[in-house]
This record gives sequence, C-alpha cells and structure tokens, in this order.
Amino acid sequence: MRPAVHAAWLPPEAFGALGSRRVLVHGAGPIVDTVFDEVATACAGHGGRAWRSGSNPPTSGNPPTSGNPATSGNPPTSGDASSVGDAPAGDAVDLVLALGGSGPPPGPAAKAVAAAGEIQSAALGDEGFLLARAAGVTVVLADAPAGLLYGLFHVVRLGTAAFDAVLAPQRHRPAMRLRMLDHWDNVAVHPVMGQVERGYAGGSIFWHDGEARRDRTRIREYARLLAACGVNAVSVNNVNVHATEAKLLTERLGDVAAIADVLRPYGIRVHLSVTFAAPVVLGGLPTADPSHERVRDWWATTTEKVYERIPDFGGYVVKADSEGQPGPFTYGRDHAEGANLLAEALAPYGAVVHWRAFVYNHRQDWRDRATDRARAAYDHFAPLDGRFRENVILQVKFGPVDFQVREPVSPVIAAMPATRLAVELQVTQEYTGQQRHVCYLGPWWSEVLRFTPGEPCGPAVADIAAGGSGAGGGLVAVSNAGDDLFWTGHPLAQANLYAFGRLAWDPRLDPLAVLDEWIELTFPPSTTTDPELVRRTLHAVMDDSWRTYERYSAPLGVGFMVRPGHHYGPDVDGYEYTPWGTYHFADRDGVGVDRTRATGTGFTGQYLPPWNTVYESRERCPDELLLFFHHVPYGHVLHSGSTVVQHIYDTHFAGVEQVEVMRQRWRLLDGVIDPAVHDRVTERLDEQLRSATEWRDQLNTYFFRKSGVPDARGRRIH
Amino acid sequence: MRPAVHAAWLPPEAFGALGSRRVLVHGAGPIVDTVFDEVATACAGHGGRAWRSGSNPPTSGNPPTSGNPATSGNPPTSGDASSVGDAPAGDAVDLVLALGGSGPPPGPAAKAVAAAGEIQSAALGDEGFLLARAAGVTVVLADAPAGLLYGLFHVVRLGTAAFDAVLAPQRHRPAMRLRMLDHWDNVAVHPVMGQVERGYAGGSIFWHDGEARRDRTRIREYARLLAACGVNAVSVNNVNVHATEAKLLTERLGDVAAIADVLRPYGIRVHLSVTFAAPVVLGGLPTADPSHERVRDWWATTTEKVYERIPDFGGYVVKADSEGQPGPFTYGRDHAEGANLLAEALAPYGAVVHWRAFVYNHRQDWRDRATDRARAAYDHFAPLDGRFRENVILQVKFGPVDFQVREPVSPVIAAMPATRLAVELQVTQEYTGQQRHVCYLGPWWSEVLRFTPGEPCGPAVADIAAGGSGAGGGLVAVSNAGDDLFWTGHPLAQANLYAFGRLAWDPRLDPLAVLDEWIELTFPPSTTTDPELVRRTLHAVMDDSWRTYERYSAPLGVGFMVRPGHHYGPDVDGYEYTPWGTYHFADRDGVGVDRTRATGTGFTGQYLPPWNTVYESRERCPDELLLFFHHVPYGHVLHSGSTVVQHIYDTHFAGVEQVEVMRQRWRLLDGVIDPAVHDRVTERLDEQLRSATEWRDQLNTYFFRKSGVPDARGRRIH
Repeated sequence: MRPAVHAAWLPPEAFGALGSRRVLVHGAGPIVDTVFDEVATACAGHGGRAWRSGSNPPTSGNPPTSGNPATSGNPPTSGDASSVGDAPAGDAVDLVLALGGSGPPPGPAAKAVAAAGEIQSAALGDEGFLLARAAGVTVVLADAPAGLLYGLFHVVRLGTAAFDAVLAPQRHRPAMRLRMLDHWDNVAVHPVMGQVERGYAGGSIFWHDGEARRDRTRIREYARLLAACGVNAVSVNNVNVHATEAKLLTERLGDVAAIADVLRPYGIRVHLSVTFAAPVVLGGLPTADPSHERVRDWWATTTEKVYERIPDFGGYVVKADSEGQPGPFTYGRDHAEGANLLAEALAPYGAVVHWRAFVYNHRQDWRDRATDRARAAYDHFAPLDGRFRENVILQVKFGPVDFQVREPVSPVIAAMPATRLAVELQVTQEYTGQQRHVCYLGPWWSEVLRFTPGEPCGPAVADIAAGGSGAGGGLVAVSNAGDDLFWTGHPLAQANLYAFGRLAWDPRLDPLAVLDEWIELTFPPSTTTDPELVRRTLHAVMDDSWRTYERYSAPLGVGFMVRPGHHYGPDVDGYEYTPWGTYHFADRDGVGVDRTRATGTGFTGQYLPPWNTVYESRERCPDELLLFFHHVPYGHVLHSGSTVVQHIYDTHFAGVEQVEVMRQRWRLLDGVIDPAVHDRVTERLDEQLRSATEWRDQLNTYFFRKSGVPDARGRRIH
Repeated sequence: MRPAVHAAWLPPEAFGALGSRRVLVHGAGPIVDTVFDEVATACAGHGGRAWRSGSNPPTSGNPPTSGNPATSGNPPTSGDASSVGDAPAGDAVDLVLALGGSGPPPGPAAKAVAAAGEIQSAALGDEGFLLARAAGVTVVLADAPAGLLYGLFHVVRLGTAAFDAVLAPQRHRPAMRLRMLDHWDNVAVHPVMGQVERGYAGGSIFWHDGEARRDRTRIREYARLLAACGVNAVSVNNVNVHATEAKLLTERLGDVAAIADVLRPYGIRVHLSVTFAAPVVLGGLPTADPSHERVRDWWATTTEKVYERIPDFGGYVVKADSEGQPGPFTYGRDHAEGANLLAEALAPYGAVVHWRAFVYNHRQDWRDRATDRARAAYDHFAPLDGRFRENVILQVKFGPVDFQVREPVSPVIAAMPATRLAVELQVTQEYTGQQRHVCYLGPWWSEVLRFTPGEPCGPAVADIAAGGSGAGGGLVAVSNAGDDLFWTGHPLAQANLYAFGRLAWDPRLDPLAVLDEWIELTFPPSTTTDPELVRRTLHAVMDDSWRTYERYSAPLGVGFMVRPGHHYGPDVDGYEYTPWGTYHFADRDGVGVDRTRATGTGFTGQYLPPWNTVYESRERCPDELLLFFHHVPYGHVLHSGSTVVQHIYDTHFAGVEQVEVMRQRWRLLDGVIDPAVHDRVTERLDEQLRSATEWRDQLNTYFFRKSGVPDARGRRIH
C-alpha cells in the first residue's frame, strides 16, 4: 500500500506499458535494487514479468533494499534478490535495463545488450543512459546505477513508444550535473514564517513542530517523484537558519542522516543550509571570522563528522549577509573569503558549498533614488569573479530582484565566467499565486534558460549554469512540495515541480511538451473516459497561465505591488515607501523605474552588449520589461501600439476574462477525472477568479485615479 | 517597600503637605482603612501625626485591612485599628477626614467637623465629599467611604493649599457615576494580538502567559493610582473574548474574584468582558438565542454564581456582532434583545451590562461607495432607542469610526435620549503614536466632552454621558497601562491615564490644568533643582502634542493612512483597498470622503441641527473635519486661507519641526529629573522624530505625486 496521498506523476497506471512486458534488470547495488523494485511492482500490477541478474555479490555491505512496500505484494516472477542469475526462458524478453560493468546478462538478453553496447560511442557518465532497440529488444544501458534509474523513468514516460518496432538509438545525459531543490522548511515552527517559509502546501515532509518526522514513507515517495523527473539533490532546511535548525549540522545531524538514507536509493544527495555564524552559535568560538585558524579548524572538524555519518553528503547552502543572516561582512571579510572557508572544509569530500548571491540592502531608504536593489548582486559579486574555490557554487536568482512574474535575467549570470554559477528558480509560487492560482511556470523558466545574455551566438543562461560538460553550478529551485494531500496544494502546481526537474535535465525541452508528459503521466489515458478532453482541457487551462497571471498582476515588468509580508494579492503601494528597495514610482504623469545609465541608476550598464543598449533604450526595450528599466508617461506608446495606461487596463480586463474561461473549461472535467483532484482545482479556481478580480480592480482603479485617463473602451473602473 | 516600579502621580513626595500635618481619620470600613493607611504612611514619611477614630465596631465581618505594606513601616502615632477612640491631645489637629454616620469624632476635631457639617447643604452621595476649613482645621466630610478616599486624594492634589488660612468650602461630586477603564488584556497570549491587544506598555498586570498573576502587588498599586484620579470601575479582560478568557465567567471566576479583592479597598468594582456565545461555549447549550428560556436561565444561574463570589461585581462588557465576535444577529435577534438578555440576569444585583455600539461591516467591498462605516453605529442602534433595559449601558466610541486623532463626535450620542449612553475613549494610543510618541490627549477629549451635538444651549457630550444626576452611562476608556516600569511605556503617557480619570470626574476641567496637576504630583518640586523649568518644559513638550501628532499624520480628519495590522506609522493607501471601510479616495484631482446627503453617503443626515447643515456644507464644515465629510479638489481653499494640498505640506513640515523642538526642550531636563524617566523619554523622542519624519515624507510625497502641485515654499519633497 502506498500512503494515502496523491500519486502525482507516478500513478500505477503510468507503468502500464512497462509493466505488461517481460523485463530483465541487470546489475548490482542499491539504486539498481530500486530499479528492480519499480519494475517488479509494475509487472505485478500489469501482468508482465520481471527478472533480476548480476546482483551477486552485493556491491556494498548494505543488503539490497526492498523497502518499497510494493515489492512485498506478491510478485508473479522470481524477481527478488535471491533469484540473481536466473535467466528468462527462450527469447522471452521485451526490455533489458543493464548496468555496464556487471558482466553480460544471462540468456537471450545478452545479444540485445551487446548490440546496443555497440551503438554506445561515448561514455554515459554518472547519470546518463542509452536507449536503443536491438535484436527486437528495447535496451537501456547505463555506466552507473543512477543512469539506469533515469533510463527506467524515461521508459515509463515513453509508454508504449518504448516498444515500437523502430526506435532510434538515443543517448541521454543531463545538461546540468546538479539539479537541486532547496526546501525552505523549518524544523521548529517559526512564529511568523511557520513550518515552511513561503510554503503553500501544508507542512513539511521532513519536519514537524520542532522534530524530524519519524515516518519517512512520504520522504521516500518524494524521492521517487524527484528521481522520475531528474532531480538529484535536496537541501532539507530553510536558508534562513534559525536556532533549532542550526543544530542540524551538529547535535541533530542524525536527523539529516536519516533523510539521506531515504533519498540515497533514488540517486539523491542531501544538502544542508548552515549559518555562517555556526562556529560561534554551535562551536562556542568568539568569532566566525574566516581568517581565524580556529574557525577553519572548526569547520574542518565539523564537516568531517558530517561525512562520518553521511558519506555522500552533498554540501552546504549558505545565505550570508542577507536579510539579517550573519555573514563575512561582520568580520570585514568579503564573500569570496566567506565561501572559500566552507569550500575548504568540503573539498576533501568532493562536495560543494552553494553560496547565495542574494545580498542587498534590505534597510534601504525609499527616498534614496541612487540605491538600486537590482544592482546589488552584481555590485557585490562580479568583482569577486575568479576568487572562489572550484567547489564554490555561486547561486544566483534568475532575475536581479526576487522571483517576480517578470524580470530581466540577472546580469550576474554573464558577468562571472571564472565562477561556477547555479541559476536559482522558485518553484514555490511566492509571487505567482501561492498555489492558489494556476500558474504553469515552465514557459517562463524556458525563456530564462534560453536567454542569451551576451552576443546572440554566445552561451545561453542554461549553458552557463551547465558549465563545460555539465560541470557548472547547475539549476536550483525552491521546492513547492509539502505534506499536502496533492503534494503542492494546487494539484496543477505539481507540473511546476515536474517541469523544473525536466528542464534541469534538458533545458532545451519545449515546456509545453514537458507539460504534455506531465499530463500523460498524471492523468493516464486508462484512468479516464475521455483522455483527449483531459489533455485538451489541461493545456487550455495551463499553457498560457503564467502569462495570464502576468496580465492581471504587476504590469510591464515593474514587479511587486503585492501585499507586504505574505505577498499574496495586490497592494500597489504596499512596498512603495518601505526599506525593501522594490518601488514603482508611479505619479500622476507616469510609472516605472529609471535604471538607465543616462538618467537613472545605471543598472543597464551591468549587461553585456547588446542588452546594455537594448535595455537602455526606451524604444528598443521589450514591452514586457519596459517599466523595469524606464519611467515613462502613461501615454507612452508600446511596441504593441497601445499606451502604457491602456495596456494596463486591457491586460487586467483580459487576465480576469481568461481566468473565467479557465474556470469554465475546467468544469468540463467534472466526472471525467478523479473527483478529489477536480474539487480541489475547482475550489482554487474560484479563489483565483476572486483574487484576479481584486488585482484587476485595484490596479485599474489605482492607475485611473493617478493618471485620470479613462479606459478607451469605456469599461467600469471603480 | 513599594514594588520597584515608577510611582507615577503618587510618589511619597506628593504627600509632603499632608504628611507633615496632624491628621485624624474618623470612620469605619475597609475603604476608610485605606484612607488611614495612606495618611499614616504619609505622616510616617514627612513627620506628621495620624490618628484614627470611629472604627469600632467594624462595619462588616471583614477586619479592617492593613494590607498596604507601608503601614508596617513604623508609624509615629497610635494610628492602627486598635487605637480606635484615641483622641489627639489639645487642639493639635490640622486635618480631619470624617465619614458621616460614624458619630462625632473625638476631642477637638468634633467642633471643626460640626462646623463643616453645617456648610454641607445637600447629600454628597456615594462618592462626593465636602472640603472646608472650620475652626482652623481643614475638614473633609463624606457620606460614604469612597467619598472620603476621593477627598483624601483631593487634599493630596491641593498640597499646601489645603491648609491655607482661607479655604472656600467646596462640594465635590463626580459628574459621572461610572468612570471605567477597559483592559484589552488577554489571559492567554494571542498569536497575533499578544498578551495585551493594542497594548504598548509591556505585558498585563493581571495576566501572564495563560494564568492570573499570583503577585498582585502591582494590581494594588494600580488601584491606588486609579482611585487617586477618580476611576471606579475596571474591566479586566479584552472585549475580544477568546477561548481561555471566556472561562473567566465560570471555571476561572476565582481569578476575577481575587482581582476584585485587591481593587475593592480603593473603591473600584471589577467588570468582565463576556462572549455572547457563552451559553454555547461554556454552558453546552445548542444556542445562545435570547428568546430561549434555557439561555436566560443559564445567564441567571451563571450570574448568581458570580455574585456569590464577588458581591460587588460591576457587570458585563460585551462586544457582539463586531469584527467576528458572536452576537444576537446569529439568532435573528436585534441588539436590544441581546443586551436585555444579559441585563435581565444582572438586574437583581443592581449591576449593568456595557453593550458596545461598535458594530459595522468589516468585510465591506471597497468598490461599494454606498456603504459607509461611519453610518453603521447609528443605523444599527438609533432605531433601538427606548428598547434597552435600564441597566443596559450602550457604550459608544466618541467618534463614528475608530479612535482616530481627529473625528467628528459620533451622531449616536445625541440620537438616543431614552438610552443610557457611555462614551468610550481610547487612552491606549493605538492610532496616536502607540506610546512611542508624546501625545497628550486631554485637549482632544475635552473638545469631545464639551461638544454640543445639538442646539448650542443643549447638553454637551459629557452631560449626555453623565445623564440626570450622574445616572448616565458614564465615561469609559481603553487603558494604556501594562507591566512596564513606567506603567505606560512612555512615561509621559501616564498623563493620559490621569487625565481620563480627572475628566470623567469633572469634564469641565481645563485639560491643561489637569496636566499641571499631573506634573505637580509626578515631578514634585521637592525632587528637582528647578521645579519651574520642569513645569515649563513639560508643558512645552506636552500641551500641544496632540495637535502636533495630528499635523504630521492623516490630514483634515480623513483618518487612518496607517500601516495595516499594527497601525503604527504611515501607509497612505494601506487601508484604501481593504474590507475595513476606511478610505480616503485620493486621486489626481482631490481627496476626502463625500458623506453629504446631496452627493455622498448621507452620513451628515445622522446629525441634529445645526451640525447636519454645518457638516453638509463644504464652506461651513470646520477645516479639521473637511476631508471626513467632503471630497474636495487639492486647490480647495480652507478657512485658514491655505489650499488643501499646501495645508498638507505645511502641517507636515511644521509637525516634524515641532517634534524637533520638543526634543530640544526635553534635553534641558537632563540632570534635572529622575534620569530613568529622562532616558526613556529621550529614547522615545528619537523614535518620534524618526517616525514623524517618515509620516511627513510619505504623506508629502504621496500627495505631490498624485496632485503634481509643488510646495509653494519650495521645500524638499522626495
């Protein structure tokens, strides 16, 4: 029995094509055990047969896991660890999943694997796999166990297509070596931020009310979902490290180790957010100054103890000198010195420190027009390029401000060629509807990842994050998952989690094709009376939902305009006179932030050509970013031909209309899909419509009151 | 030893004139014991002598209290209860405090008392007293013990003047029978509102973290301070009655009784906020419908039990159908039916229910221009006039909205001649600087109390609250006291607590004369090297501080513009698009709320002549209320000759300048007064200046951005 939570993109029905075949899993080790467990369970459920070979002797002291409760069902085959070496009879094999270096598989599978092996012209690496059809058998070959796992889930995604007579050989390797989710989960419930900071999906799957969860079933399910979309690293606590959470590094390390044990069979390494002040608050030292020998020793010793407990520990995540967190500035050191301190301690283990570039003055004076929060990350970090150790990953938010529905790409990304950069996305929908609004973010991330921050033929954002042969910093995101029945509060927000993993694996994927994968897996055709209606409706509701959200919220890239604190719903002036550096400067004549070199904050100068001139120019700047870079009159005519103020009115009316249509479309699925999913989404669409209407009315009223310009189409503005 | 808190307006030095005299206290009972304890302590400290007579036999089963720790000092006289009947020798008496009905005092005092008694031409009532000089002796006569206590504190206030050779006989009776403080204290710390809702003076003196405080020393000190300014009733818990607090009526009643025991010797009765849903949540009944026999029975039985424990219990306070609190509307009953239900239960004991008129729709749609929160109390309650039982007191906030720095007087006050009305003020500075800003509210309350809501010769607000011969609803206020060292956070905020009591006793008092009393008592001349500098400086800082606060905050009566939730500091649009009904409707052309009958919400029609026409007229409406009643263009010229927008600029610049001057003046007291007081005020003045500057800059910038009108004097607007 699986726990009573939604299966997300791994319902049993998604394994129908695989599970009805005859499958041989060849290889040894815990992750191969996971692969075999998945296969055995699928075959048990769909009438296929599963064999295992090559798993003797065990590759480590650990016995092969059979922790997946499904394997204790009643497999119709000899598919447990004791049957190593058993060969399927005759040529009765449809699929072989074989790990290189495990010797040839037994029986008829050997020929197919040998044939497939000839196709393989280059190393597959730690995580890659080959998919080929040879001698009438579909073959997945991998050089390392994780590759076999990813190959398995690839076969699941393909469904029956994996067994088509003609299947061109495919080599798959992840574009990014690190595909990581950060959990902003607190161990102790924070008085303001709760159990999960910026969490919109219930509690934490790791922690509950000050303690680690004893029942880790849910964590295992989560690991399985993540492996199926390609995630291979998870940081298990909030980057704002409070007192209780600081102790995860030392006295509460056992809690982290227990989570690592659950994630490991799915190829996922555990990372930990630590406080830069740890030598003081945990070690009792008088300082955390990186130049002090005792501080370095403390980190070395502490890290050594971590590896004694968690040999494959991934590394540290640090938010330093940011929004009140301690950092090297306290000791007159810069961020290279700070990051290198932790990197030095991690280096012996091949691990990394993720050092966040989210450093800015959050006590800015709103009267001070010279200070520009958008400039901060570049100003702090670009001068440090080349000074970070090799195992420092500088983790840069994709935009210069803070995960808004629309921002330019951060200029930091192109500014530090001698630094390993990770690009950080936000799967949790802090500023994009908090999982009460449908907002499929795949298209937005895809735009960001494909963006070329320098000359047109230069590397894209994804290429920079990938680094040479995948050795860059990778892609990181804040998770949107919690202990909610549907994992993500809004069931359709699962697609964002799925898409993150897939785009981290391959940023060139079409985000709508990824959505299609998610639909096919999550709503398998066999579970509905009208698969085509389901697919069409979900696309209709989700494909354009990010742009819909953009339409009814802050216009033209200006950002924020959200209610302070919780960040849900509109408040045009909510942050206008605050210390947070997020302003729009609307007055009776116009709106927007002048970030030009000519007359503004000079932020445009942080970009490489051609963007430093494109953004500088009011005429060439893309419409959707106009107010991010320029303060313009309400009558300014956009490339679209509309004035700024009419654009605001039009998009806000249109956005709400689109939500109304989404809601109508969704009604078509009543009785066609799982009623629990349908009800939850229906309830959230009602709230989305209410909230979108509030956005529309507040924004339109605000700008009408300020500009005095009536709507050209005479619609009602309050 | 007194507890280590600030003595407020009762430092030992304030008793110098009294304490250096020969004083006889004549009468029996616990409150007379209190009087004697005060006298004895004063004489012990200042070289006088105290005698007691008439206290045998005790008037009740209770032994005379000697709980005041001061009496255990070492009284130089025979002044304890055992010396009843002892006469001072010869004519050695300067002051006699004598209770009528206790027979003649012994010795030479008898003659003076008899002479004074002849002056007394009318009954003094429960709380009145006569002060006269007869036969060379100052005499205080009272018909009831509380009167003697108030007479004592009057003598303290007079200081040496009480012993002047010529002292015209004075009869003192309180204008209001009920002079009450409501504590918005929670027993259990509320997750949002904390221990004290809208409290700015630390924790509660009654409750701590879910429990009643065991040490009641502080409560006794508080009672003494309140008696000294004339307060005679205290409600001990928040009108928002949460789960724990509901139980004070039943299983936690002992906590209330314990407080009552401490307040009683100071003539103060205890009241309790109760939830209208008590029959359901405490009694387990299926309904709280007032028409149900069982509900009435439950209240009768429950109230009977209250009186078994607290024979002088004052009554209930109820916030019903307001901001989420339950009420009669739940059962299709009106507020007369609701209030009468509780009044019926209290009637046998001569007690009252305070039923708050603060009922409005707090889920208003900001788009709905027809709904006007200012109308709500009148619309709900005026039609019910005459339907309330005699022991219902309808408790009406002084203004129609919510304790703003400037509002018109609530039209409800003049609209219900057949109802006992209490007028509610807010001593706790929720909207007037939260005890971080100096804001002496006496002048504001005085304006309200002297306001004549009908024809010029009709009754003033204070007369209505007083009712015929003081039998009205009285004056009620939310207390500003907590467990802070200085009682009120800001030491100068003590003056508001003092002034509330004094104005409730006599609303015709000049608020600046009341301030002078407070200064004289709190900073006794004997405690400083330069009494005149102290007096002059405190007046300079405090006299106009309410108008200063008004100048730099929301202009011209429009109200709010505070940060939502905590209500501290500016946020011009903070409530503009919320459900709370508090809007200013500023656009590029003008600002203000049209509440006229001609074109607005019709609120002006709730006033009697002449105010219904004065407020209706844009020309006749007083400047300070213009934006409360009218939406006017920025160029509208005020009676002052300034335009609205220039008025905003001018007052905001002026307000900050005045705070700067306050701060400079305050520095003059460095080394002249108690350094702890000086430091605390200094620290708060720094914050006041910061905050006032923030108000100035946000308001000016907001209106400059909106209006486009530059400051006529060319000052910097950001």
